[in-house]
Amino acid sequence: MESTPHTAIERLDPEECWALLGQMNVGRLAVLVEGHPDIFPVNYVLDGQGIVFRTGAGTKYWSAMKAPTALEIDGFEAGASKAWSVVARGRAAVILERHELAEAEALDLEPWQAGSKNHYVRIIPESITGRRFTTTRPDIWKAPLNDARRESFR
Amino acid sequence: MESTPHTAIERLDPEECWALLGQMNVGRLAVLVEGHPDIFPVNYVLDGQGIVFRTGAGTKYWSAMKAPTALEIDGFEAGASKAWSVVARGRAAVILERHELAEAEALDLEPWQAGSKNHYVRIIPESITGRRFTTTRPDIWKAPLNDARRESFR
Repeated sequence: MESTPHTAIERLDPEECWALLGQMNVGRLAVLVEGHPDIFPVNYVLDGQGIVFRTGAGTKYWSAMKAPTALEIDGFEAGASKAWSVVARGRAAVILERHELAEAEALDLEPWQAGSKNHYVRIIPESITGRRFTTTRPDIWKAPLNDARRESFR
Repeated sequence: MESTPHTAIERLDPEECWALLGQMNVGRLAVLVEGHPDIFPVNYVLDGQGIVFRTGAGTKYWSAMKAPTALEIDGFEAGASKAWSVVARGRAAVILERHELAEAEALDLEPWQAGSKNHYVRIIPESITGRRFTTTRPDIWKAPLNDARRESFR
């Protein structure tokens, strides 16, 4: 039996949070739409200045420059039965400057929702926090579609 | 080669969205904290009235009753190279009534973040939307930690 109490929560330092952000490439982005939270998955990369993603979502999300956002990633370390979650909070802005746009286009980013109105958006994190903890019931973190997903990557 | 254009987006009807919500058990919840979006994973179940989850997060999130929230789930159907996402938007409230609390405690819910201050929270969705689309680059939807995750469930 694991002797660690399952209530133990380990705070991750910013360096580890950034390392995890660098390892992952899909996160969930929370934004505000008319004052109500909305959320969607994004494929992202780090570009040295912040977190960049490409989106077909239009002005509904991005007309307000410097929109408050939170990007979350999470994972599960099966060997240790530990789950973790990292959240980067900051303001997001569409990349408009020509040279920055050219750099963004070189990032090889795939939009979650493809379409003709693609925007490159960068979040400059104002805070980044992470936590890791032992879960007593790792089975619940398995989603049914992971079975299908893993088959395609064997 | 897939003949379907990768820009094709299929809207899911509410019945399919509810069916997917019933199949999954982990989602990401977006909430507002001092006007800024925050996001964290939750283990949830449907209880006939709405979406119920248990959380160790305290009054920071739930002191304001009827907090606006969005719960998102997503997955990837490898056989068809299709990704999907479902979002339920609504207001969340801590379950306080004694008989409702007893029912919630019978739901066998595991909090993401364990702790002594556990709350049961229910979202009554005001809207539920979903979409599915073909992705041309399924490889990007694989997260590195999925390898570790899948090993534990063989």
